[in-house]
Amino acid sequence: MNLKSFIRDIPDFPKAGVIFRDITPLMANAKAFKFAIREMAKPFKGMELSKVAAIESRGFFFGPSIAIELGCGFVPVRKEGKLPWKTDKKKYSLEYGEASIEIHKDAFSKGERVLLMDDVLATGGTIAAAASLIEKQGAIIEGIVFLLELDFLQGRKSINGECPVHSLMHY
Amino acid sequence: MNLKSFIRDIPDFPKAGVIFRDITPLMANAKAFKFAIREMAKPFKGMELSKVAAIESRGFFFGPSIAIELGCGFVPVRKEGKLPWKTDKKKYSLEYGEASIEIHKDAFSKGERVLLMDDVLATGGTIAAAASLIEKQGAIIEGIVFLLELDFLQGRKSINGECPVHSLMHY
Repeated sequence: MNLKSFIRDIPDFPKAGVIFRDITPLMANAKAFKFAIREMAKPFKGMELSKVAAIESRGFFFGPSIAIELGCGFVPVRKEGKLPWKTDKKKYSLEYGEASIEIHKDAFSKGERVLLMDDVLATGGTIAAAASLIEKQGAIIEGIVFLLELDFLQGRKSINGECPVHSLMHY
Repeated sequence: MNLKSFIRDIPDFPKAGVIFRDITPLMANAKAFKFAIREMAKPFKGMELSKVAAIESRGFFFGPSIAIELGCGFVPVRKEGKLPWKTDKKKYSLEYGEASIEIHKDAFSKGERVLLMDDVLATGGTIAAAASLIEKQGAIIEGIVFLLELDFLQGRKSINGECPVHSLMHY
């Protein structure tokens, strides 16, 4: 299935000169959405993972369904101030300024095997911060998966470690 | 399965006097998470729905997986300014002030049959605004489902129409 045919290009969003890859037509199509979920889960079947973690907000469109597909629990990596219980927090740099993401302090157990996902790999700052948070709780990231990757931003350089990284689409 | 045993009560979040029902332990448990998704989808099987819509952000934890379970496409109802293309917008009242939610202008076709979902039914303001947005595009809401419902806030009074409303847990 040609998933790119379900991506809508939006010029100048969120700012001039940027082409935003709108994934809502892909999600709106039942067959394309299910296919994308299955393809993102496929490389990690049989790896005996126990958790899938995804990053707010667009990671939540896919991470929970990948967790169901792999028989895993789901952990949300949220923006600062959204999680109600005690959290571990990680600051990271944006193009302008900083942001923080959080996970609950009991999100992962030592040695637990985790698949991390987000919708888009851009510069990689957010995924690197999320990976660092998860690893600090003693869990092991066994793979990272994206729906799409913006190759020209070279986000893979921000991802440390030896785990497999998959993206369904490349731009 | 006793889903309430996976809910963590957080006193005084997000403000004094409120008990927040933390759903992250439920999602972290693979069996409980899968069971909850299946139970939310079950009443709507065989209704030939074409779309599941869910509300930002916590609705996204469940809506996409319910869509997969029912063989539907998924439509996100987002906070203002998040969707990249042309949108329809609806303002609604919060306890203090106002908020707006949006869907893309091409989110639904006339006559399309839709299941709407969110994690929690509280006062019902958000779900009523979402239902109104969807119906204005000519789609038919065939059901509404929540993971949990705060009965004492009487949110069902805000929900117009004759469609079935289900909640897996009541507080």
